[in-house]
Amino acid sequence: MPKQAATEVEKLCEKIYNQLKNGSPPQISMPSRSTDNILYDPQLRQYILGDKKVKRSVANVRNLRPFAQLVWIAKFAHELMKEGKTSTLRDVFYSAQAYEMTFKDQPESDNIITDLETVLGVAREDMHIFPEERSAVFGDLTVGYTVPGYEGKRFNLTSHPDGVLIGPSLTTANFVKTTADKIIAIEKGGLFTRFIEERVFKKFNAILIQTGGQAPRTTRTFIRRLNKEMNLPVYLLMDGDPWGMHIAVVIISGSANAAHLRNLNTPDAKWIGVTGTDILKYKLPSDPLTPNDLKRLNELKVDPRYASQTWQKEIEAFLDHKRKSELEAFSKYGLTYIVDKYLPAKLE
Amino acid sequence: MPKQAATEVEKLCEKIYNQLKNGSPPQISMPSRSTDNILYDPQLRQYILGDKKVKRSVANVRNLRPFAQLVWIAKFAHELMKEGKTSTLRDVFYSAQAYEMTFKDQPESDNIITDLETVLGVAREDMHIFPEERSAVFGDLTVGYTVPGYEGKRFNLTSHPDGVLIGPSLTTANFVKTTADKIIAIEKGGLFTRFIEERVFKKFNAILIQTGGQAPRTTRTFIRRLNKEMNLPVYLLMDGDPWGMHIAVVIISGSANAAHLRNLNTPDAKWIGVTGTDILKYKLPSDPLTPNDLKRLNELKVDPRYASQTWQKEIEAFLDHKRKSELEAFSKYGLTYIVDKYLPAKLE
Repeated sequence: MPKQAATEVEKLCEKIYNQLKNGSPPQISMPSRSTDNILYDPQLRQYILGDKKVKRSVANVRNLRPFAQLVWIAKFAHELMKEGKTSTLRDVFYSAQAYEMTFKDQPESDNIITDLETVLGVAREDMHIFPEERSAVFGDLTVGYTVPGYEGKRFNLTSHPDGVLIGPSLTTANFVKTTADKIIAIEKGGLFTRFIEERVFKKFNAILIQTGGQAPRTTRTFIRRLNKEMNLPVYLLMDGDPWGMHIAVVIISGSANAAHLRNLNTPDAKWIGVTGTDILKYKLPSDPLTPNDLKRLNELKVDPRYASQTWQKEIEAFLDHKRKSELEAFSKYGLTYIVDKYLPAKLE
Repeated sequence: MPKQAATEVEKLCEKIYNQLKNGSPPQISMPSRSTDNILYDPQLRQYILGDKKVKRSVANVRNLRPFAQLVWIAKFAHELMKEGKTSTLRDVFYSAQAYEMTFKDQPESDNIITDLETVLGVAREDMHIFPEERSAVFGDLTVGYTVPGYEGKRFNLTSHPDGVLIGPSLTTANFVKTTADKIIAIEKGGLFTRFIEERVFKKFNAILIQTGGQAPRTTRTFIRRLNKEMNLPVYLLMDGDPWGMHIAVVIISGSANAAHLRNLNTPDAKWIGVTGTDILKYKLPSDPLTPNDLKRLNELKVDPRYASQTWQKEIEAFLDHKRKSELEAFSKYGLTYIVDKYLPAKLE
């Protein structure tokens, strides 16, 4: 993947170079990311950008600055890829100053990075610009690293019983082999640890992923790759509230912010709970939904990612009883209930 | 360590059992944790509790409920330890309902857990009750696990180049061997990854720890153990603002909340930056301190952990120029400047 990203950057720069050589003012064109050009594609089951284009030509003096910034980001990302280094959005902002390339603030550099993603159709992670957040994984998967210093080395993801971080090395690793037949992604760190202790990876042949709240893009790509490359079905287990449900939906259907990209979401992943109906069915300890929770539910109700009857029913269940429950609530029935009873019932 | 914790719980329960057998109303006594009994001990270089005691006897009907709750927590923790399972504060709160033991809310159960820590002088982590947050580590340290299913297995912490989580398995592991001669703890995940890429662990013979903001207690214990058991000096590298500085100070001198415990802090750890003077010396990109930052600095100024002249000077430097800089600000001089120039200068 990173190799392809480097090629795309080179192609872009070659194009600009040729425009200059031919004496025409360099220009680029990309799909518009304005709200009215973000559409939901029910077939791809994710947001996409429509036909509206944005042209940026240095012939227009107002475009000069963002054009130069974009070329600089391309150059900087190319260096990162070439040298096998990674960076963060924040790092890129400060690094610009080393090149006397100025961004007035980080949102400006973040935005130009997204422009470059849009022009190339390549995620910034493939250009070695990673999020600050890290989530974790544990399970029987042997990977082969491709990062400098670890080329060809293999590692099994059950080697460390606290779990290992999902960072640049893991997302670019080859998946060598696994005995697992499913992925279970969990919102919370404490439960992730208990699932390891309860040997969920053995009992359910599962690779366990801790999303750490909203899953970072790196983790969403990692889940998608496991689903596509290893043919593993994905099950999502989050808190029983609109926020937990939406963590699942972003893994399944992606986000509007990433409408210019593909391959970040896992359309066939299944949300297994905690559902609104589970709260009643399992008589879980629960708290009332706050006004903010209710507002969020009403937003989700008209969100195209929730258009199916199944999702609408789930939202209605919450709006109906107006309660929410965390994953830990199952401990009411003993620490192992969630593994012994709830999980088998939901995986059926 | 966990074995000792189990013994302490058993001793407590035996004492209560004997009181009952002798026909006297069970009672326990513990140091008071009220603010007026929290003192700073300059010799131990941490907060301790003073001589004020709190007695809790079931002869007093008002004590009956918290007494029963404490005994239940002791029983629950003992089960966790016996079965080699772990839990979180939130889990304990919900688990109580499985035993028809009621806490009106989680703060109530959290508080009783702290009572039990105080009575026994044992941290809840040693009783298998862990925080939700996880931080990470990378470096040449071989550990031997003691957790079920991994007994006797060895693992080297350079095996996974994204780093591995610091959880129950790692905090209870034996430290077998290391070629490292120091620990460098870093506040941020992005920089932790870059330090691995820049081979800081080789160039500086360092074990790298990512604290993920304020270091969880588990991580603070892990740092202390590395310092004491492996004789490794500890260097702390945080953002250049009052919050970053305080992350370092909590690792060094502990927190008032943990005045009833020992062995959580590393008094000899050194804060190497980003200091207030570094911001000027290195001409770092910086932002003005907010009113909230300034308020925090004035609080820290009268905090006994900052009583030394060195700390007072550092606070003054911030109050003087009223600027703050993040670790990433060094990227102004190129991505590797922090490793090539800043780190060697500070470690001298």
